Amino acid sequence: MKTRVLSGLIMLPLLVILYLGGYVLFGACLLIGIMGVWEFYNGFRKMGVHPNFLLACLAAVTLYIINLTTDKYEWYMLWFFGAVLLSLLYLFNIEHRKLEDAMATITGIFYVVFFSFHVTLVDQTGPYSLLVWLIVITAFGTDIMAYFSGYLLGKHKLCPKISPKKTIEGSVGGILGSVILSGLFGYFFMPDILIHCLVIGLLGGIVSQFGDLTASIFKRKMGIKDYGNLIPGHGGILDRFDSVLFTGPMVYYYIVLVIGYMP
Amino acid sequence: MKTRVLSGLIMLPLLVILYLGGYVLFGACLLIGIMGVWEFYNGFRKMGVHPNFLLACLAAVTLYIINLTTDKYEWYMLWFFGAVLLSLLYLFNIEHRKLEDAMATITGIFYVVFFSFHVTLVDQTGPYSLLVWLIVITAFGTDIMAYFSGYLLGKHKLCPKISPKKTIEGSVGGILGSVILSGLFGYFFMPDILIHCLVIGLLGGIVSQFGDLTASIFKRKMGIKDYGNLIPGHGGILDRFDSVLFTGPMVYYYIVLVIGYMP
Repeated sequence: MKTRVLSGLIMLPLLVILYLGGYVLFGACLLIGIMGVWEFYNGFRKMGVHPNFLLACLAAVTLYIINLTTDKYEWYMLWFFGAVLLSLLYLFNIEHRKLEDAMATITGIFYVVFFSFHVTLVDQTGPYSLLVWLIVITAFGTDIMAYFSGYLLGKHKLCPKISPKKTIEGSVGGILGSVILSGLFGYFFMPDILIHCLVIGLLGGIVSQFGDLTASIFKRKMGIKDYGNLIPGHGGILDRFDSVLFTGPMVYYYIVLVIGYMP
Repeated sequence: MKTRVLSGLIMLPLLVILYLGGYVLFGACLLIGIMGVWEFYNGFRKMGVHPNFLLACLAAVTLYIINLTTDKYEWYMLWFFGAVLLSLLYLFNIEHRKLEDAMATITGIFYVVFFSFHVTLVDQTGPYSLLVWLIVITAFGTDIMAYFSGYLLGKHKLCPKISPKKTIEGSVGGILGSVILSGLFGYFFMPDILIHCLVIGLLGGIVSQFGDLTASIFKRKMGIKDYGNLIPGHGGILDRFDSVLFTGPMVYYYIVLVIGYMP
């Protein structure tokens, strides 16, 4: 419990980054993407799988450069193609590579780098850029509220094989917490789209738990407890941001496809 | 040799499909993508890896529906996100899934379905749609010319560990053949952009061999000789179209990013 509260405090710099937005957030997302994929690939190395970290760095930097320099969407398509293509060419050193090495490279680039990139995209949605806060409010709000409601009320196991401590009561409490916190955010900061904030809160409460459980599955299969040990006792970057990987895209697609924002 | 010539004849329906273009080509690409990913996943099953074929079908159909119904590129971004997301959720049945099952699902969707989808995209480039012919001319032209020049002149092995029969002489002959055939095509059908046709011929001669070798690596690692046995003696769909997976995107990105076509 103490650890969990402390780890909340350590997230304070994040608030500054979100408040500043723009290039600061842009740089932070790129950095978190690269550090995240490093941790992700470390997990694979423990399984004897060797993804290409340099390639993931190249993919990350290229993706952010495309975002910075062009609005021709075909460059993004080319980025997807190129990321898969280069990962496959990595297999040409056939004696020293397994198919898993290329597949893990591809998975890491998309799951960590591309997913986290959506936080930057949300920050670039003009009048809706403030919704970038809901990415973290839903992610961390769900996590904290699920923890407390599970702690106080938890009786029925949610998915013991993936994450033995999680309960259905905690899960429901997390979703409710996410809705309430997102509603409060909307009420005070974006009252015109309060309803949208509540819906994002509901969706965020659900997808952030899927993000958390997905990371648990990876770690379980990799045979590790945490992705890293960046801040002693608080795990790695990916342990902190596993839910953000899912709530970031959710908020972005909600803005462009449900609210209908056009750049 | 006889097999190779016969297999050329069997490609004749392809010429009709390319000539008709439009919905016929659209449907053929979707079908080839789905059949291809089926063969690809069969190879994985031989390794004890179990990708989710139904998910790949869903991804393929969704991709083509997006192409048909919207020109908002964010839907393509959502498609990428969704394909990766659903593949990861496939792991939630944690006792019966390996990480490889999800990673192979992702790889198949992008490598087979997304790569082959570019053939349709080329067909939709208005004044440049005729260049769809260069996708197959470079792919099959390189293959055939590499075979004959390797047969007649081949002395130095190209990459014996991946494909023991291929020679440097064959590879160079393949590239030259691709340039010549593409040049002839440009001269007769698109004289205004003859230079572009020659450049595409050169690039196609190179990337189609990478496509061929990539498929060889997969098959070697999977422990299979051919991906399938659709037409007895001629292998499966993917054995036929392994180079097209690479020349399709190459021609598309050449049109939109080098020639600068805007829809």
